[in-house]
This record gives sequence, C-alpha cells and structure tokens, in this order.
Amino acid sequence: MSDVIQLARELIQRPSITPVDEGCQTLIGARLSTAGFELESMVFADTTNLWARRGTQEPVFCFAGHTDVVPVGDEQSWQYPPFAAELADGYLHGRGAADMKGSLAAMVIATENFVRKYPNHKGSIAFLITSDEEGPFINGTPKVIETLEARKEKITWALVGEPSSTAELGDSIKNGRRGSLSGELSVRGIQGHVAYPHLAKNPVHQAMPALSVLAGAHWDDGNRFFPPTSFQISNIHAGTGAGNVVPGTLKASFNFRFSTEVTAPELQQRVIDILDAHQLDYAIDWKLNGEPFITGSGELLEATQTSIYEVTGRHTELSTAGGTSDGRFIAPTGAQVIELGPVNATIHKVDECVRAADLEELALVYERILEHLLC
Amino acid sequence: MSDVIQLARELIQRPSITPVDEGCQTLIGARLSTAGFELESMVFADTTNLWARRGTQEPVFCFAGHTDVVPVGDEQSWQYPPFAAELADGYLHGRGAADMKGSLAAMVIATENFVRKYPNHKGSIAFLITSDEEGPFINGTPKVIETLEARKEKITWALVGEPSSTAELGDSIKNGRRGSLSGELSVRGIQGHVAYPHLAKNPVHQAMPALSVLAGAHWDDGNRFFPPTSFQISNIHAGTGAGNVVPGTLKASFNFRFSTEVTAPELQQRVIDILDAHQLDYAIDWKLNGEPFITGSGELLEATQTSIYEVTGRHTELSTAGGTSDGRFIAPTGAQVIELGPVNATIHKVDECVRAADLEELALVYERILEHLLC
Ligand SMILES: [Zn+2]
Ligand SMILES: [Zn+2]
Repeated sequence: MSDVIQLARELIQRPSITPVDEGCQTLIGARLSTAGFELESMVFADTTNLWARRGTQEPVFCFAGHTDVVPVGDEQSWQYPPFAAELADGYLHGRGAADMKGSLAAMVIATENFVRKYPNHKGSIAFLITSDEEGPFINGTPKVIETLEARKEKITWALVGEPSSTAELGDSIKNGRRGSLSGELSVRGIQGHVAYPHLAKNPVHQAMPALSVLAGAHWDDGNRFFPPTSFQISNIHAGTGAGNVVPGTLKASFNFRFSTEVTAPELQQRVIDILDAHQLDYAIDWKLNGEPFITGSGELLEATQTSIYEVTGRHTELSTAGGTSDGRFIAPTGAQVIELGPVNATIHKVDECVRAADLEELALVYERILEHLLC
Repeated sequence: MSDVIQLARELIQRPSITPVDEGCQTLIGARLSTAGFELESMVFADTTNLWARRGTQEPVFCFAGHTDVVPVGDEQSWQYPPFAAELADGYLHGRGAADMKGSLAAMVIATENFVRKYPNHKGSIAFLITSDEEGPFINGTPKVIETLEARKEKITWALVGEPSSTAELGDSIKNGRRGSLSGELSVRGIQGHVAYPHLAKNPVHQAMPALSVLAGAHWDDGNRFFPPTSFQISNIHAGTGAGNVVPGTLKASFNFRFSTEVTAPELQQRVIDILDAHQLDYAIDWKLNGEPFITGSGELLEATQTSIYEVTGRHTELSTAGGTSDGRFIAPTGAQVIELGPVNATIHKVDECVRAADLEELALVYERILEHLLC
C-alpha cells in the first residue's frame, strides 16, 4: 500500500463530522513537523484549525483543506462501513475519501517528497487546515485568514484540495467561484377572513407580481469565466393552514449565485427597486455568503495546468461552477486561488469513494506544482 | 326574568361544543312536543339533529338553527365564565349567547306564544336543529335535508337564526350567501441545488406568474345582491427550509367567494385555462363548500322586513356578505331562505354576549313573521 493511501485511510478512520477534527490535524501536524514545519493550532470556539509553515520567505505556497466531513446518513445503506476506509477493486471507500481526506493525504505526501528533494526550496510552504468547512464556516478558514491578515502574513498561492475533477483526475479545476448572496424576505399584509377580502390585504397577492419579476429578471450576461448570475427562490411560506384565513405575512428566501460582472450591493439595490416599484410593505434580511473570485491567469494557474498535463497527459478545463468553497475567504487577501482534487461524483453521498490510483497521481501533481513554483 | 332569557340561559349552560349537543335538543324538543310538535331525532355518525313539525299541510315554515358552539379558547380571559350564562347590565353573557342559543330560545318562545294564540294556524311549523353547523357540516343539515328530500317533504320558508344584525337588532338580514369554492393546487417542478439551476425546475418561479394572473383577475361584476366574486390565496408553501435547495413542489390553497353571476364549473375552467396557458405541471383538488343562493323576493322576505319594522321600527338592510351558513343546504330544495338573528359583534370571540332586550324583541319579530305567513 502506498504512503498516500495509508495516510488517507488513517484520516478516514477518524469520524470527524463537522466541526469535530477527531485528531486528524494532530496526525497531519506530526508529519509536517518532521518535515520541518512550524505548527500553530488555532482554536476558535468549537473549531480546531491548523496553520503550518515551512520557511519564512515569500512567496508563500499554501495547501488549503478541511478535515471535517458531512454526516453519513443511513449507515446501513453503505456498501462498506463509512469509517472503515476499505480498499476494494482499486477504490478507497469511506466518508471523506473524495472530500477531502484523500487530497489532504496527497498534500502531505507531496510535501514530504518535495522537501526531501529540495530542503532549501525558495519561499515557504504552508498548510491551512480547518475542521469547519462543511458547517457554518465561521470559526474555520475566515478566522485563520483574519489572524494572518492581522499580522500581515500573506499567502501568495493557495491550492485548495476540493474535489474538482469530474470524470478523470485533473480534467477540471476551479479557478474561481461565483458569489453567493441570500435574502430572507418578509412581506407584511393584513390578516383577515377570506369572506371579507376588503378588510384584509393578502401579502401573497401583493408579493407575487414582484417575485415574478425577480424570477424572470436578467441580471448580467456572465463573462468568460462565469455563467450569467442566477436567482432562485428556495422557500416560500404563507398561511396558517386554515382555508378561510387571508395570511398576514409572506416569507420567502432566495439566493443569488453571481458573477464578477455585478456586485452584491448592486444586486441588493435591484431587488429593493423591484419590491419598491410594487409598493410592498417588506423587510429583507441579507446574508453575503461569499464574494465571487477568479484567478484568471498567473503562475499558480499556469503551474497547475502544466503539472496536470505532465503527470496525467490531460488538458484541464477551467470551471467556476458549483457551490462555494473556502477559496472565497482566501482570495480577498490578494492570493491566487486554484482548487484541484479528485473526482467529485460521490461526494456527500452514500458510498463515497475515490480511485486509489487517482490519489497517488494527485500527490504527484501536487509535488510537481511545488517544483514549478518553489524551485 | 323573561321566558326567552330563561330558556337561553338553560341552553348556554350546556357546553355543547361541536358536534356535542349536550341535551339542548332534548330540552327544545320537550317544549315543542308540549306545543303539539311531532319530534324526529336524526342521528348521523357523531351528530344529533332534531326535526320537529306541527301540522301536516303546506306551506311549511321552518326555523333552522344549531345547538353547537365554537370552543371558548382561553377560559381565563373571559370576564364571565363562558357557560355560566350570567345576566349583567342588561346583557346575557356566554358562549352561544349570540350564535345561536339566543335565537333558538326566541324561536321556541315565539312558537309557543303563536301556537297558544293560533292553535289552528294554516300550513305547518317546523324546526330543523343540528349540532354540526360550526364543524365539518357533513352530518348535520345536509343529511337532514337529504332525508326530507328523499321522502318529498318540502320546506317552503326557512328562517335561519344566524346572528345577522350588525349594530341593532334587525338592522340587517341575510337574504342569500355567496358560494364558496376551494382548491388545493400543487405545482410540480424538479428539485435541485441552487448552484445548478439548469438541472432544476423551480416550481415557485413557474407558478408565480400564473398565480399573479389569478390574484389580479376580474371574475364578474357581482349583481344587485352580490359583490363581485373574489379570489384569495390562503396558503402557499414550497421549500425544505434549506437555503440552497430549489424546491421540487409548490402547494397553494385558494378560495373563491362567488356570486350568482358565475358557476363553480365556470370558475374551475377559468383557473385551469390560466394554469394551462402558463404551461404548468400541476394538479388541483377542488372542494365546493356551497353554491350561492338568493331569496330576492317573496312572502318570507316581505314578512320578515314588515315584522322587523312593526316590532322595532327599523328598516332592515339586505345583505349577502360574510361567511357561509346552513342556508346553503336548504335553499337548493327550492325553499325561500332568510337569516335573522341578534347582533353578531361578539360571535366566536371571548366574552360573547347579547343584549337581553334584543332576544325578547327577536322572539316578538319571529312570532310576528309566523302571524304574517301562517294566519
Ligand atoms: Zn470539501
Ligand atoms: Zn351560527
């Protein structure tokens, strides 16, 4: 069994469901310490984070990742027990195999091998590992970045281990993510009896034309990195259940996934303008989950694409699709950010697994990236 | 204490919350039996109904009412205990005082007095009393009417004791009611993640333009008896609560209160046409709660208006406003139907009460109506 599979298995066997780390960072930290890293454990509330750095110079290459995993759901429906980390038919099985303990193992092995060959590499190598990526993302990466920023410690290049590949290792990387802006809308009417509609004001009737306009609106055209900004109503509720009562309030929640062609304040203003034009009595509770970011070019993108080609022979596709990642907290510091990890087909699902050979290859790609950037 | 107040108190002291009758009908039946009525208790499932008739000839004048009352809510917040039937400052207090045990007492007293004076009145006097008016209205008046229709027993004139007055006794009577048609709409979409809107189909986005058209539609102009038909969405729900999930289904319930200018099938077809025009994937579960009915003229309306004027000096206003009543089940048999009862300001509320003098006057009006129609 290769080093990377062995370490991945040790990590998977720790049931570190968000925000629990279950000793994964201690394990990783011990390996990095041996490889010459300075360790710093940053604990914020229920979340343990590891900041490890080898070297004091810039540029700083940082592997970023998370030790926490999502819950397993119905354990009985797994073909292999989710925390057994069984290896069968060339696949490593278990919760976190693909998202993202396999990547963490590949990062550690790549670093160990690189440091052995190039003990006097230029710049620094760092690890930013959190145990709160799948959860509320409050006490994880954002707080670590805040701490680093406060002491003016900069990351030049961040490689996030999120499973970016779709069919084969390295066929796709994320060089950015859309922004995510949520709103909780409440529209006030006047409750009443359906038999006396003139004494009531139905917030459903009031709100629907405005919500129709929002649902049909064109926000931007996107650009070469991003699809057009999208708007989705995820929840809508009004009414007590009684059929003869005109509801007093309507509540709706919505979410924007937005490109770099528009800003969150611009979207907020457009929503407000539409609601105001419909003369609604309303309130909105906004939450900016993440600004969009893009690494459109630069040494990190180039080194990643080249390394993938050198190791796997594959041309990689750039993507900004999908959800959010902790990259959104690192990018605003000015760092270049790329996400590269194994095939994501089974993540967050029953029977999560990853091709063992992919993890070995991933470690080689990671090591090659280090060579391109720090030699 | 007058006879009518005494009987009203005895009825209020029986806590007959729907569908419980708590012996009210036995009490009323005993009085009517003494007055020469034939009694027939009609029990359907959990509901006791009383059909009582004096005479075998037509025309048939029928007092219609219910012994059941709505729940009292928080008993602690009542100024007088809801089933104590206390008389204070000229008001009779308690659940059912206005809706409609006061009316029942007035009907019985009016009948006793009328029969004493006119033992050989023409036609027949009947009582149709149910204990399921406030509830699901399945085993009450509809089943009694069904039974009467099956044996070809006809009601010529029905006087329903629902509290029709607004400020002073007799200032308003109902000579009809709007129809009520409900629908439970479910619109199917395709559930998905807000980050991948192209893989999902948001039923909220799909449905809103159609619901906006429904909410804004003009159904008819009403007529001299009815206000225009109204449409209200009473409930709307979609979404699991999660902010990042595009819901798979939207459910909405709506209600029409409709005039005699339109029929239920016409309204259903118009709704279907609008939903189809928006190419929705949907299903509707319809419920016709009641057809509209109107007693636009005739001896009953005339006798009622004249009697109110003779006893109270008031000109009465005709109204079809408000909710539904059991009149909707009687009218389809061809009967003329009028609703006349005390002031409805406190019905279904804490501290329900009625002016004692109003009940005495109501008994006189009822008696006068009998004189106009059966002498
Ligand atoms: Zn992840
Ligand atoms: Zn009633």
